[in-house]
Amino acid sequence: MVLDEIKNINDIKKVDPAKYKALAEEIRQFLIEKISKTGGHLGANLGAVELTMALHLFLDLPKDKIVWDVGHQSYTHKILTGRKDGFDHLRSYGGMAGFPKTNESECDSFNTGHSSTSISAGLGMVAARDLRGSDETIVSVIGDGSLTGGMAYEALNNASKLETNFIIVLNDNNMSISENVGGVNKYLNAIRTSDTYMDIKDGIYYKIKDLPSGDKVVDSVRRAKSSLKQLVVPGMFFEDMGLTYLGPVDGHDINAMVKAFKEARKRKKAVIVHVMTQKGRGYEPALRHPARFHGTSPFDIETGIPSKPSKAAYTDIFSTVMTKLGARDPRVCAITAAMPDGTGLKRFRNMYPERFFDVGIAEEHAVTFAAGLAKGGYRPIVAIYSSFLQRAYDQILHDVCLQNLPVIFAIDRAGIVGADGETHQGIFDLSYLNTIPNMNIMAPKNKWELSDMMKFALQNDRPFAIRYPRGEAYAGLEEFRAPMEYGKAELLYAEGDICLVAVGSMVKTAIEVRELLRDRGLKCSIVNARFVKPIDEFAISWAASNHRVVVTMEENVLTGGFGQSVREYMDTLNENCKLINVALPDDYIEHGSVATLKKELKIDAEGVCDIILAARPF
Amino acid sequence: MVLDEIKNINDIKKVDPAKYKALAEEIRQFLIEKISKTGGHLGANLGAVELTMALHLFLDLPKDKIVWDVGHQSYTHKILTGRKDGFDHLRSYGGMAGFPKTNESECDSFNTGHSSTSISAGLGMVAARDLRGSDETIVSVIGDGSLTGGMAYEALNNASKLETNFIIVLNDNNMSISENVGGVNKYLNAIRTSDTYMDIKDGIYYKIKDLPSGDKVVDSVRRAKSSLKQLVVPGMFFEDMGLTYLGPVDGHDINAMVKAFKEARKRKKAVIVHVMTQKGRGYEPALRHPARFHGTSPFDIETGIPSKPSKAAYTDIFSTVMTKLGARDPRVCAITAAMPDGTGLKRFRNMYPERFFDVGIAEEHAVTFAAGLAKGGYRPIVAIYSSFLQRAYDQILHDVCLQNLPVIFAIDRAGIVGADGETHQGIFDLSYLNTIPNMNIMAPKNKWELSDMMKFALQNDRPFAIRYPRGEAYAGLEEFRAPMEYGKAELLYAEGDICLVAVGSMVKTAIEVRELLRDRGLKCSIVNARFVKPIDEFAISWAASNHRVVVTMEENVLTGGFGQSVREYMDTLNENCKLINVALPDDYIEHGSVATLKKELKIDAEGVCDIILAARPF
Repeated sequence: MVLDEIKNINDIKKVDPAKYKALAEEIRQFLIEKISKTGGHLGANLGAVELTMALHLFLDLPKDKIVWDVGHQSYTHKILTGRKDGFDHLRSYGGMAGFPKTNESECDSFNTGHSSTSISAGLGMVAARDLRGSDETIVSVIGDGSLTGGMAYEALNNASKLETNFIIVLNDNNMSISENVGGVNKYLNAIRTSDTYMDIKDGIYYKIKDLPSGDKVVDSVRRAKSSLKQLVVPGMFFEDMGLTYLGPVDGHDINAMVKAFKEARKRKKAVIVHVMTQKGRGYEPALRHPARFHGTSPFDIETGIPSKPSKAAYTDIFSTVMTKLGARDPRVCAITAAMPDGTGLKRFRNMYPERFFDVGIAEEHAVTFAAGLAKGGYRPIVAIYSSFLQRAYDQILHDVCLQNLPVIFAIDRAGIVGADGETHQGIFDLSYLNTIPNMNIMAPKNKWELSDMMKFALQNDRPFAIRYPRGEAYAGLEEFRAPMEYGKAELLYAEGDICLVAVGSMVKTAIEVRELLRDRGLKCSIVNARFVKPIDEFAISWAASNHRVVVTMEENVLTGGFGQSVREYMDTLNENCKLINVALPDDYIEHGSVATLKKELKIDAEGVCDIILAARPF
Repeated sequence: MVLDEIKNINDIKKVDPAKYKALAEEIRQFLIEKISKTGGHLGANLGAVELTMALHLFLDLPKDKIVWDVGHQSYTHKILTGRKDGFDHLRSYGGMAGFPKTNESECDSFNTGHSSTSISAGLGMVAARDLRGSDETIVSVIGDGSLTGGMAYEALNNASKLETNFIIVLNDNNMSISENVGGVNKYLNAIRTSDTYMDIKDGIYYKIKDLPSGDKVVDSVRRAKSSLKQLVVPGMFFEDMGLTYLGPVDGHDINAMVKAFKEARKRKKAVIVHVMTQKGRGYEPALRHPARFHGTSPFDIETGIPSKPSKAAYTDIFSTVMTKLGARDPRVCAITAAMPDGTGLKRFRNMYPERFFDVGIAEEHAVTFAAGLAKGGYRPIVAIYSSFLQRAYDQILHDVCLQNLPVIFAIDRAGIVGADGETHQGIFDLSYLNTIPNMNIMAPKNKWELSDMMKFALQNDRPFAIRYPRGEAYAGLEEFRAPMEYGKAELLYAEGDICLVAVGSMVKTAIEVRELLRDRGLKCSIVNARFVKPIDEFAISWAASNHRVVVTMEENVLTGGFGQSVREYMDTLNENCKLINVALPDDYIEHGSVATLKKELKIDAEGVCDIILAARPF
């Protein structure tokens, strides 16, 4: 095995070039095998094997810096920097992270997780380098999907001013997580399929341009085209912005890439090296189902089928409700930021394509676009994961809620998300949405309530956020289905001295807590909060005046969340009732299984019991 | 006066075209005269007079829709829609707003205030129109400055897919608030100065293209240029994205613009009409000092000099401190998002140009770029107004604080900002920053403390936010200048039964409250909180155990702010002490003078006294 020779940083430089191909193949097999057991991001990593090898051959790590956009494609980088063994515990609690982490390796130069940040971060490092006067090479690697995010464009607009070297590798696999969208993709596609690419596939574009008569060659290529719009010269778009463009280069040809990188480093400018890769390369199922193998749970290598059949997730419930709402109400529109699969909107898209909008990885635009749709009389439902919706805080506040527009935010992956770790935990949404006037926030206790809340929100002309967790939709408590009422909580049990007031996913936990405490001879009432904003003051008053302890429970940071709203209100009541806020600490939460993390954070049933008992309420 | 004929929507259509020029002139005089008294946005409005007239002649309002990006350029639109009289009370409490407001006129189709939202909102309206099957024309008017914001690009990327009409007017005055930056500006500049523009200035570009031999003409223009990079054909950048481009058109030639708009409406696509305007046109001082006349206080028309000499503002203090820090510490860098004047960084720029970065209207990039600089060993200070920093919530959380990087956020215009109103109030920052792990938040009580806090932040390797209000820097309390200590408050007075714990600007108010209450026979201690995060638990414990009432005071919404943090902590103390949180309500706050608004909101000294007395603490 060539892979056995790779133990530390730069070991790849000792490998006989004749073995590169074998090494790439071995890395692919390694990744498929490991990820089939742990789950993780597969497609993008299979696509970036040679690209990563070429970067490692070209660069002098850790002196030089690579910033991986999003970072889910950094597995080969981890292998090549001495972290091969980490893959046995990839994304497990205490194990190796699925994204770059500066505390894991000095070769990880910047933590990433969200899209479109790499050029900004890289530019900052370039500025630092130039001020210092050192000479390291700085490379940002960004996918064509991430290029649909506005932040990448803000950075490119700034990169164009550079008079020193900065290499931006455009890792173009013609894919976001799902299909790519928009004008820039269309443009890239024109490059991908243009004659110029075919004509010069043995070299790269800059060679032609560097010839004394280079411009003429390029011009003649242009003239061969019949109309202005089809006049595609690779990179004109980028060159128009003042960036230097090299490419396209075959992203599975290591020599060609190293040559291009070396050429790029000669320029005292920001240089885009356009590298064409194939997502899922080397694994048939990933090639056939790119969206499913973008991030995958453990699977059978032979068939590509998930090892454990997955139970109906909240995403599936949302998916079904959306198709029903779409049928019932012609005003209903659905908006996703490049995640029709992940958010469950694929079925809606297939049934109501004219009312479905995939805007690319562009959460900010998504929200203000929704505001425009709402202003135009439609009822947009914006489905964005909790941690990604952070990007649109200002748009929610400034474009939707200031005008009190009826936009519904369907916030999946709210609370602890598990294996993706720090950058993906959806633990801030209750707080940041809580600060926004006119916003209304709900969280369902089970799958039926998600459906009821969607319908309820649609009947009310206000902005609504409905947040629900990753994974299995809770199918218990079917017997409790009080009609939805604006701002009203649902009483599940009224008994005893302790009242648990739980938000969304924590209602299930509250039921468990109630059973554990019953074993200790303590009786609990349970209130399903339903609304985080506005809080149900009547229910809180009832709880405070009829119990000796009220316990709020939420899968969200304490600061600014549900518990603090309840505390603020309860303090006005002058009841002799103690309040305990169960919430997440003021900290980032690393990767691990949801169960493990909840246990560690003491928000599982045992943890909550301990907190209640430790408060010695009686 | 032709202007007298303009009383209602569409009155302009009855004006004799021969009088358009006179009308434009009268509108300019009207604007100069009115704004010289009330203050307001002048430069952009003087530039957009003919553009607005042309749009009103072309469109059928209110059926058709105009979305004004940012909206500060909508004064002529207000005049032409029957709101001429509103200019006597422009930006005053209860008077006309300085930005588009849907509740002011049915001709205001969308509220704006922040940059780069108009194309997204317009696209949403286009989608609604097409679903409905109606035929109104929708126009978004965006400046070249706003085009540096990533959100605009996200929207353009989506607009390129359109198969129905959408008109985007690029109002290009070659200016942000200050000079414009970046690759796209360079590109636009190439258009502005290109031969093609000169060659075809009597017509517009599409005419050539529409000729049977149009492409050849264009090609020959291209060939005339000597190198690939100088090959500027107007709009190629946009056409590459799949948008149709028309222009450039003289933005002071009403007929040419109406012609271009009519042509644009024929296309079943998103069409960019590139209109060249002159910021400050018709008023010499505004032409000479475009940044100062972007938004201005009342001024003398003859000289352009402000009517009242302005007292030293916090911005000025910050400006001075920055130059000192820049001299003392070579790691100090300064970053602005297109506002070197407004934020006070101009002097730093002039003294340390290599450590100064104006990134354009690109708050998201600004923050992650700062993270990169910090990672590279430098100490970036990011100066962004409170309400605009909302744009970068995710970047602060995900790129700066997750890695605990020493980036300092200098947050000007925090709290009530006054005349700019709802979209500009800086009343959410304490709350949204409070949710972010590793963040540290400070607010100075006076001008010396701003300086001390800047120096303190620089000595500590952590993320810091320092927020200070618009306007005059408080120069009182010079006698209190306890050394800064991490997480520690400053005790000003220890006496009496009431303890006022005030944040930043509210310390001055606390002093006034103390005097008012003394007249009532009540004595107050005063604690200057200094730190909003972390709170000083020792100081709060002291306050709670030595007083019967603790009153927190902050110029920020209640939810998630300082008061709730104090409440959370105080409730753990079991002291028999009442807590009152003085903060802003869960609502948007309209325009008006800062003093009037504070009075209305009961956060001025009298209001706080009333709240304390109403709580009947004794």
